[in-house]
Parts: sequence; structure tokens; C-alpha cells
Amino acid sequence: MSNFFKTSDSNATFVGNMLRGVGQVMFQKNGWTGLFFLCGIAWGAYDSGTIDVAWGALVGVFVSTITGYLLGLDREDGDSGLWGFNGVLVGCAMMTFLDSTLLTWIALVLCSALTVWVRLALNNTMKSWKVNSFTFPFVTSTWIFLLASRALHGMPADSLPSPHLPGYFDWTVSLAPLDLVVYWLKGIAQVFLIDSWETGILFLIGLAVSNIWAAVWAAIGSAVALVGAILFGAPGELISEGLFGFSSVLTAIALGATFYRPSWGSAIWALLGVIVCMFVQLATDLWLEPIGLPALTAPFCLTTWIFLLPLFKFGEHKHQVDHSDWHKHTATTKKE
Amino acid sequence: MSNFFKTSDSNATFVGNMLRGVGQVMFQKNGWTGLFFLCGIAWGAYDSGTIDVAWGALVGVFVSTITGYLLGLDREDGDSGLWGFNGVLVGCAMMTFLDSTLLTWIALVLCSALTVWVRLALNNTMKSWKVNSFTFPFVTSTWIFLLASRALHGMPADSLPSPHLPGYFDWTVSLAPLDLVVYWLKGIAQVFLIDSWETGILFLIGLAVSNIWAAVWAAIGSAVALVGAILFGAPGELISEGLFGFSSVLTAIALGATFYRPSWGSAIWALLGVIVCMFVQLATDLWLEPIGLPALTAPFCLTTWIFLLPLFKFGEHKHQVDHSDWHKHTATTKKE
Amino acid sequence: MSNFFKTSDSNATFVGNMLRGVGQVMFQKNGWTGLFFLCGIAWGAYDSGTIDVAWGALVGVFVSTITGYLLGLDREDGDSGLWGFNGVLVGCAMMTFLDSTLLTWIALVLCSALTVWVRLALNNTMKSWKVNSFTFPFVTSTWIFLLASRALHGMPADSLPSPHLPGYFDWTVSLAPLDLVVYWLKGIAQVFLIDSWETGILFLIGLAVSNIWAAVWAAIGSAVALVGAILFGAPGELISEGLFGFSSVLTAIALGATFYRPSWGSAIWALLGVIVCMFVQLATDLWLEPIGLPALTAPFCLTTWIFLLPLFKFGEHKHQVDHSDWHKHTATTKKE
Repeated sequence: MSNFFKTSDSNATFVGNMLRGVGQVMFQKNGWTGLFFLCGIAWGAYDSGTIDVAWGALVGVFVSTITGYLLGLDREDGDSGLWGFNGVLVGCAMMTFLDSTLLTWIALVLCSALTVWVRLALNNTMKSWKVNSFTFPFVTSTWIFLLASRALHGMPADSLPSPHLPGYFDWTVSLAPLDLVVYWLKGIAQVFLIDSWETGILFLIGLAVSNIWAAVWAAIGSAVALVGAILFGAPGELISEGLFGFSSVLTAIALGATFYRPSWGSAIWALLGVIVCMFVQLATDLWLEPIGLPALTAPFCLTTWIFLLPLFKFGEHKHQVDHSDWHKHTATTKKE
Repeated sequence: MSNFFKTSDSNATFVGNMLRGVGQVMFQKNGWTGLFFLCGIAWGAYDSGTIDVAWGALVGVFVSTITGYLLGLDREDGDSGLWGFNGVLVGCAMMTFLDSTLLTWIALVLCSALTVWVRLALNNTMKSWKVNSFTFPFVTSTWIFLLASRALHGMPADSLPSPHLPGYFDWTVSLAPLDLVVYWLKGIAQVFLIDSWETGILFLIGLAVSNIWAAVWAAIGSAVALVGAILFGAPGELISEGLFGFSSVLTAIALGATFYRPSWGSAIWALLGVIVCMFVQLATDLWLEPIGLPALTAPFCLTTWIFLLPLFKFGEHKHQVDHSDWHKHTATTKKE
Repeated sequence: MSNFFKTSDSNATFVGNMLRGVGQVMFQKNGWTGLFFLCGIAWGAYDSGTIDVAWGALVGVFVSTITGYLLGLDREDGDSGLWGFNGVLVGCAMMTFLDSTLLTWIALVLCSALTVWVRLALNNTMKSWKVNSFTFPFVTSTWIFLLASRALHGMPADSLPSPHLPGYFDWTVSLAPLDLVVYWLKGIAQVFLIDSWETGILFLIGLAVSNIWAAVWAAIGSAVALVGAILFGAPGELISEGLFGFSSVLTAIALGATFYRPSWGSAIWALLGVIVCMFVQLATDLWLEPIGLPALTAPFCLTTWIFLLPLFKFGEHKHQVDHSDWHKHTATTKKE
């Protein structure tokens, strides 16, 4: 058993790999970051009376991390937290939208494990394009189980949005300064589907512990998307719950602080990405309304692919551009 | 003309290539298998009063096989039945969902022929990922013609499901032992869109004639999906008509008896695939409800890709894994 | 600044690159063709009282062409007009479906620029399959902004089709000979979303100026799709507004006069493509009805990929087939 959990890095432990898995949702190979993220999830889940979301996150990252060991995958990936980041999101999403029944938890275990080989499958197809599948394994696997749940008696989908044709929108929203700060912080918290401004602060701290640029870009991403959504007159409910923020936050960290070295060129490029992501978010929301599915992090994946696939180079980044893996890019200031 | 129909294998004839085409729907390069399948289709079509489905199957496999000759494609593929398996499914599907008018038959001929080069197109794109397009050429081509038919006066789509938003589900279903056997056998028959338990028996015999493992895995696939659907509380009508079985049957044959040699590892992998396929089936059904399209074999293709693309190796299968073609994998105990 | 606009070809100017960009919508590297196309757009926009469509076209091609310079892309592409052809279509489409507000124009600028790197992104992924992204960057970028606009207060989508489930169709249509000629010409004009038969004539002249075969195939494409749609009983409104023509026109020019040398084999292949495109057009229309999006040129892209991806060779075309770029294929009889 001890051999089973042996990692390629003598400092890496199973719990460490799980925590780094949580951190990798925002591209941080850092266990402390993961711990701050888990605290944020726990607080948000407790505060809104949906503590199952926190348990879901723990089960999700546990199952997907152990699946990596069971399948005998590359240990370097596991030690970098790349087995668990899809699983933790599966846990948050399934417990946000589904009732907590025994069958739901069985489905959650299956779906978390599934993301591990869907990730391998997608990365194998995308490798020749020099990009990575990001959180798309989470998106596709969760979409499958959420869609199915609507017709499954045993795992009721009471909190999923109702299927409807895009039509009526309510544009009223308070723009008081303090409210704006809340929306901005909720935009960061929604990366893990948490609707709490305190969680947003915990996430920012978690990012700063690992990489100050990641924290800065997360803050910029949520702010720019918020301003854009208000300027173009997006629906009020989406703005106030931070639902424009989360994909833009991930896009901002990816383009601004992960795949390119900080430079004026890459900064402008990342800002463009965040603005485009605001439109992609709304388009994905509306595209999925007739089947009542949430967009999850699909807008982030789509936007970041659009901005990485041209294989542009910025600043000092003169060598051959290959975005197919990111643990070589990830800056780590501390290590769990 | 004799030269035109000359095959690369001196034993292969045009009729043999058609029959092997029918057999290849379930991965069997065996004319006797194809003959049993055709008998099963004919019986099911006759029994339900929709004999046009059997004629559609014959026309579909004939047109697609002859298209392979006309386009001058690789004869080894043709002799293995790889030109016809999409066409026979087109024939079954179009005659199941559309009224039998002259224009419908013209569309059926066009659609059957189309699958032959759509297969080449998809295989060319998928080759670098080391997987095959399976029956996806049938799925995409038939989706195009079924969708269009709804707006075409000349080929009425009276038997297509009505477009509707996913909503009301009826979960009542009889679980009497004899009924369960019927659902299980219908699950196998539905591979060719046939709603008849007798056809399921004929299909099992056809598989056993070529490869006993294929028959065993088909039986397992339909049974496991049936149990899973009942356990999770799927809609009764889908269960009783065998609509959870057909994609799981194909997934089971692909993963359990075609692309991996039988071993404990590959058996567990195939079982996992069958279970995941049950959710993918339901998700695809609901995703297509707003446009009123049937899922066809898309859930099988998606699930099998997810389980092959990671390029895992099982048992003795130590050499380089390439799943892009299957006639090298196909076990043949008899040859037509 | 003069250096900034320096082109690889001493005869190429910025205005010339814009005009060739307009011409490349129908695969013509010819500024005179682009000029005729712009006149056709201007006439159609003026005639229907929607002059903003013409301004949109100009802004779109200007912004996307200048984006190519700003990103420092390959000048040979720019001189061939390959930066601007998606942008000019974005301008036409956004001004056809959206109200003309300041925010709509800002979105139009952003979307036109976006197509330039979406084109690079898609071409990078498709290069290994030896095909090109055609106008799909226009399609995806415009879909994103049109979908989003429905929920955006600041850019009202009053002229977008209402989301609805596919259901009622009106098959009445006048088949008087003169009406048929009007439908046929409108089918050509609709390539730029223009509903005017005079524009169809201007487009045919523009094509003939560059390549007589392109004009012939455009005429054939619109005519065959028209006959097919009438024969199979398509909805009257789609027929009379030329909405079956535009994708078939582009497919006909691509297959008949661009990627294969004229021969009997390629002529039959192109005709098959045009007929299949008629069904793909209708299927795409119905698929998008629940979210109220227009098909744009997606049916052309899908059909042409299906017919190019098998990598068949026709006539003298004996060398290695690579369809990933077309300015080597484009016949130019005159040069701007």
C-alpha cells in the first residue's frame, strides 16, 4: 500500500496531491492554495446551507486522485495535482444541482473517476494542436450526468434550471458601490460554483500565496467582465450572482499569468480574452437554455483555446510555443 | 463488369461483401452473421407491420457497397464489409421514421451513399488519434436527412418524435421476470432499430456464429444497461422498448471483444464503459428532444471513443495501441 | 506608417487588400470582384432601406484587414485578401440582425477583429486534415455575438428569428417562371445576406471578371439547390428569399472551380455536393430554431469539408492533395 501511494517526488503525499488538485483548478501547483480554496468552498457551502457541496468537493477530489493511482498514470501529473482538479469541480457541481441521495453520490463517484480518463482522451486529441483540455473533462462529464439526471427518478435534479426557450430577461440590478464589490468577489467564488463574497476573498488569498500575478489577474478578470456586462446591459441576476466572473477569472489567469510571461503584449491579449469571454459566457448560457443545463466552465475553455490556438508569442517568449501542458508553466512560490 | 466487382480476396463476392457489411454493424467480418442479422430485421419488420424497414436495410447496404466500388476505394475494406455497415443502418432508420414515398427512397439512396465518403472523411480526421469513426457516419448523415425531412413536404416525417422541451417523464414499468427478458432481448434488437425480442435472439445467434465472445458481451451489455436503468429509475418506456440496450451492446462488443483481448482488466473496463454508456444514452436523448431527433448510435460512438482514446493497454496487449481500424482486430471463426 | 502597410507584393495596397478580402468570400483573389460585390451589397442595402448593412460590410472588412497588420501576420495572406473575408460577412450579418446602436458597432468591431485569430486557430487545428476553415470563423464568431445580443439590453436583437420549436411550415410558393429567376438570383445575393435579385446579377459579373468557371458554378449551384428544394417540397419562404442558394453557391464554387481542376469527375462531385448541401442547409436551420439563430454559411462549410476530407483526386489532379490553403488554387485572370 505504501508503494501504491509512492510519488515521483519524495516530498509529495497523497493528501498533498489532493490539495494541489484543488489548487490546479486555477492553475496553481500549490497545496496551500488548495487548502485556502477548500476553506472558501466550506464557508460558502455552510453559509448557504448546502454543506453537501463541500462534501462533494472532498469526495470528488479524493475519487479522481485515487483513480489516477488505480489506472497507473504518470506520477508526475499526479504529484502536480493534475488528476484531481476536474474531480473537485464535479463534486461542487453535482451537489449544487442535484438532491443528495445515495444514487446521486454513486453517480458523483463515477463521474469524478470518469474525468480522469476523459482528460487523457481529450489531451491525446489536442496534443497535436499544442493545447490542453483544461477543465473541459469536468464540463463534458458533468453535462452527461446532469442531463441524464433530469429523467432519472433516483437522482432528482430539483435545482437544475428549467428547460425553456430564450426569451424574457430581467435587466434590473443595483449598482451601489458596495454591491459592485460583492458581485466582483462572487465572480471569483463562482469558479467553484460558490455564491459568497467571503469565499472570493479566500480564493484571492489562496492565489496570492502561490503566485501574486495569478491573484492580480483573477481580480482583473472578474472586474473587467463585470464592467463589460453592466456596460452592454446584461441580465441583472447573472451580474449580481457573479455568473459573468468565473470563466473570465480563469481566462485571465490562463492568458495573463500562466501560458505567457507577463508583458505588455500578453496583458493586452489577456484583457481581450476576458472581454470576449463575457460574450462567450452569455452565448453558452442561452445555447443551453432549451435543455436546462448550466454553462459550467465551458466559456473559459472555449475562449482560452481561441486565444492560445493561434500560437502567438509575446515578450521574451521566443521559443517554440506549446501549450499542451501547464505544470511546466506554473510558477510555484511555496510547495505543500 | 466482372472486373468491376473483382475483390482483393478471390473468395469474396459482391453479395458476400454486402452480408459482411451487415455483420460489421456489430464488428463481425462474417457473412453468416450478416445473414442472421438480415433475418432478424426481416422478422421484426414483418411482425410490426413495417416491412419497408427490411427493404430499406437491403437497399441501404446495396447502395453503400456499390458506392465503394464506384469511388474506387480500397478493396480490402470492401471485402471486409466496411463499406456497407453504415448504409444498412441508414435504411433501417429512415424507413422507421419517415413515410415511404418516392422522394424518401431517393433520399435514402443518397444518404446511404453519403455515409461511404463521410466515413472516409471522419476516418481521415481521426486517424491521428488512433480511433475509428464507427457508426458515426450513419449517425451524422441520418441526422441531416431526418432533420431536413421535418420541413420537407415530399418526405413526411410522421414517425419522428415531436420536438419538445425535456419535462414530463413516466417512470412506470413492469418488472415481471418474463418482461425483463423481453426488454433485455429488445435491447439487442434495437441495434438495428427493431422492437422485437425474437430478433434479439436471432442477433445473438448471428454473433455466436462468428465470435462467441461477441455474443457473450452483447448479452452482458444489454443486461447491465437494463439493470442500471432500472436501478437509477429511468423512464419506463425507454426501458421496456430496449432503448437503453443498443448502444451498450455495441460498446460492450467493442471494448469487451474487439479492441482488447479478453482479460480481467479489459472486462472491468468494458463493464465501466457499459455503465457510462447508460448515462450517455439518456443525456443524448434529452439533448435532442428540442429538435425531435433520435439518438441513433451516437451514445455508443461517444462512449467507446472516451474509453479508447486514453490508449490504455490490457492483458497481453503490450504492443503499440492503434484502434483506427478494426478488421485486423476482428476474430472470424467462419468465413462466408 | 508606410512601412506598416508595406505588402509583400509591391503592387498590393491596403485598399486592394480590403477589396480582395471581399472577393475571397467567393474564393476570388481579385479586387475588381470585391468592388462588384461591394456595389451589390450597397445596392441591396439601399434598396431594402437597411443601408447600415453596407456600412457594416465596410467597417468589418476594414477592421479585420487592419487586425492582420496589427498582429503581424503573414503578409502573403493579407495581400491575397485572406484577412478580410470573414470580417466583411460579420459586418453584413450583425447589421442585418441587430439594431444599430453604439454598442452594436463596438461589438461589430470586436467580432470582426476576432475572426482574424479564430481563423488562425481553426486553420492550425485543421491543417493536419488538409482542409481550411473557410468562412467558419465568421460563423462561430457571429453566432457568439448574436446569441449574446438576445440577452444584452445595449444591443437589441430585434431582427433575429424568435426561438421556437420546429413545427409549423408554410409550403405555399409561387412557381411562375419570372419568380423562379428572382429566387435563383437572390440565392446568389444571399451569400452576403442580401435579399435582392439585382445584387445577384452584380455578384455574377464580379465572379466572371475574375474566373468564368466560378460564375458558371455559382449559377449552377443556386439553380440546382432551387430545383431540389422545390422538388422535395421545402418551405416556400425559404425558397423565395433565396435561402437555399447561398451555401450551395459557395459549395459549388469551392468544389467545381477552386479545389479541383474542371473535369467530368469533379463536375459530378460538385453537383453531388450542391444537392447534399440543400439538405444540410435545412437541417442546420431546424437545429438552430430553438435558440433562434440563423445558419449563416455553416452548411457550406460542413458540406465542403465532407466532400474534401476524403482527399479524392480528379482529372489531372494527380499530385498529393492538400486543401488547407486556397490562394494557390485560386485562378486570377485579372489583378487589382
